[in-house]
Amino acid sequence: MPPAIRPVLAIHGGAGTVPRETMTAEREDAFHAGLRQALRAGHAVLKDGGAALDAVTKAVMALEDDPLFNAGRGAVFTADGKIEMDAAVMDGRDRRAGAVAGICGPRHPVLAARAVMEQTDHVLLAGPGARRFCRQAGLEHRPLSWFRTEFRWRALQEELERRRLGLADDGDEARKHGTVGAVACDARGNLAAVTSTGGMTAKMPGRVGDSPLPGAGTWADDASCAVSATGHGEFFIRCAVGHEVASRIRWLKQTLDDAANAVVMEELAAIGGSGGLIAVDPGGHVTMPFNCAGMYRGFVAADGSLHTAIYREPFRLERV
Amino acid sequence: MPPAIRPVLAIHGGAGTVPRETMTAEREDAFHAGLRQALRAGHAVLKDGGAALDAVTKAVMALEDDPLFNAGRGAVFTADGKIEMDAAVMDGRDRRAGAVAGICGPRHPVLAARAVMEQTDHVLLAGPGARRFCRQAGLEHRPLSWFRTEFRWRALQEELERRRLGLADDGDEARKHGTVGAVACDARGNLAAVTSTGGMTAKMPGRVGDSPLPGAGTWADDASCAVSATGHGEFFIRCAVGHEVASRIRWLKQTLDDAANAVVMEELAAIGGSGGLIAVDPGGHVTMPFNCAGMYRGFVAADGSLHTAIYREPFRLERV
Repeated sequence: MPPAIRPVLAIHGGAGTVPRETMTAEREDAFHAGLRQALRAGHAVLKDGGAALDAVTKAVMALEDDPLFNAGRGAVFTADGKIEMDAAVMDGRDRRAGAVAGICGPRHPVLAARAVMEQTDHVLLAGPGARRFCRQAGLEHRPLSWFRTEFRWRALQEELERRRLGLADDGDEARKHGTVGAVACDARGNLAAVTSTGGMTAKMPGRVGDSPLPGAGTWADDASCAVSATGHGEFFIRCAVGHEVASRIRWLKQTLDDAANAVVMEELAAIGGSGGLIAVDPGGHVTMPFNCAGMYRGFVAADGSLHTAIYREPFRLERV
Repeated sequence: MPPAIRPVLAIHGGAGTVPRETMTAEREDAFHAGLRQALRAGHAVLKDGGAALDAVTKAVMALEDDPLFNAGRGAVFTADGKIEMDAAVMDGRDRRAGAVAGICGPRHPVLAARAVMEQTDHVLLAGPGARRFCRQAGLEHRPLSWFRTEFRWRALQEELERRRLGLADDGDEARKHGTVGAVACDARGNLAAVTSTGGMTAKMPGRVGDSPLPGAGTWADDASCAVSATGHGEFFIRCAVGHEVASRIRWLKQTLDDAANAVVMEELAAIGGSGGLIAVDPGGHVTMPFNCAGMYRGFVAADGSLHTAIYREPFRLERV
């Protein structure tokens, strides 16, 4: 973990990693490279004195463009072979928030979430109404072929086959937990959070997870912390994960680290909710707990050094 | 407020009442009668030793059938003249939850929310996927004509005309806040909450408010309280109202009354969020704060007496 010096940016590319035994060195390197690229994109904003809100947006745009991660390009498929993406953004300065659910079209779902926040009186738009808004908002759109990856399509077929055969869940966390997110504390101590996802492979059409729900998968409040979660979303909603971390800081006076660990290791674990989260506080502290095998994650410290990791392992460090 | 004796049931028919100066005695009586009918429906479950979950469901079914309230029959219209209803249910025993957003078809949206909780692995379904699930779940459906009321249609035309003319918001809270909800504590001390709504008149298609979001408009946890909120939903989401009341009880050790009042009178008011909420705790305490002119509301005490009110006024009491 970095010292408490701001500005700081942390990102995740999902809890629920490829099982270590099936991970190749090349693939592992590719994940680290993808994480570093997103960290650089976000840090470029922060080091020029930019706002946390813009930094998390840029970082997540990079992750959405990277087909390795389940958001934007490379999003997973629903049970009926469609792609339905969710995203949320929250600004810790005034807790303004914007979110979309069930969209497919905008290259960057995070920008759709920001457009809801900045151009409407609403917080959350879902389904056809959300898609229509995205077109009217002038967001860059891409055809389905741009989002579609053979890897995710095969994962859907395998999951549907598993269900047809009535086989037990194989416990593959990668199928359930794919998400990307970013949290940042800028030089002024302002916080922001973004989460973006394709959701769960073979999810029921219309299913909305925790990612686009402020208080659940995404939360930012300068009075406490910014949180982006990743995991089995239904359990995260039932724990109000993002807001619960903030509440423990505000009312129980826990540190960021203690609060986040209690939620992930105790509260979520108690109801069987696997996954993790990343969080920052106004002092620039960062925490990244997860209760499963791995979580694609990274942070960039105030000196610009990039730290990335996947499993329970030392961070790979790239100096500036 | 009733003494802390359980079982207890509280309901609301929305904050954002008809302005007192335009309310007729007949109309006022009709609202009280509608509230009492819902209280009786829920209390019938509780007095026979039934579960809080079933009591809040029955109470809200009655409110959904009553065209006076903005949920189910009598729901408001979106900007493009459709009806899109949202509902959520949460069981305080294990914080299981179910919710739907953007549906029109099931006579009782609350039963759609329960079906999501009881028949799927998901918490929230939205839009066409949610509607398809409702049909497959065998829920009783009604045609649009059943939900449509002339009163709500006129309200839409007036709002659209107001926007066409570029007039300032007239501050009519009734247009923004219509919602119904119920919270209960049963004889065993188990809690449950339901919220159901047509949303805001002339809302953007696809807009999802706080009602179907666990942690925002709806929350239930036997460790703290059950909450159903009503008000300008976007602000309620940004305050995570339901979970914030619970957090203040759990971590700040506030009473139910103090916690609910702080959220409604201080936190919501601080960002301009008008509305209110109803809440119960495992001891059977009830609270019903609101920061606007009125809130259709009522509770039934353990002795079966029915208490209903609209404005800041003494409760009307109907003894058993």
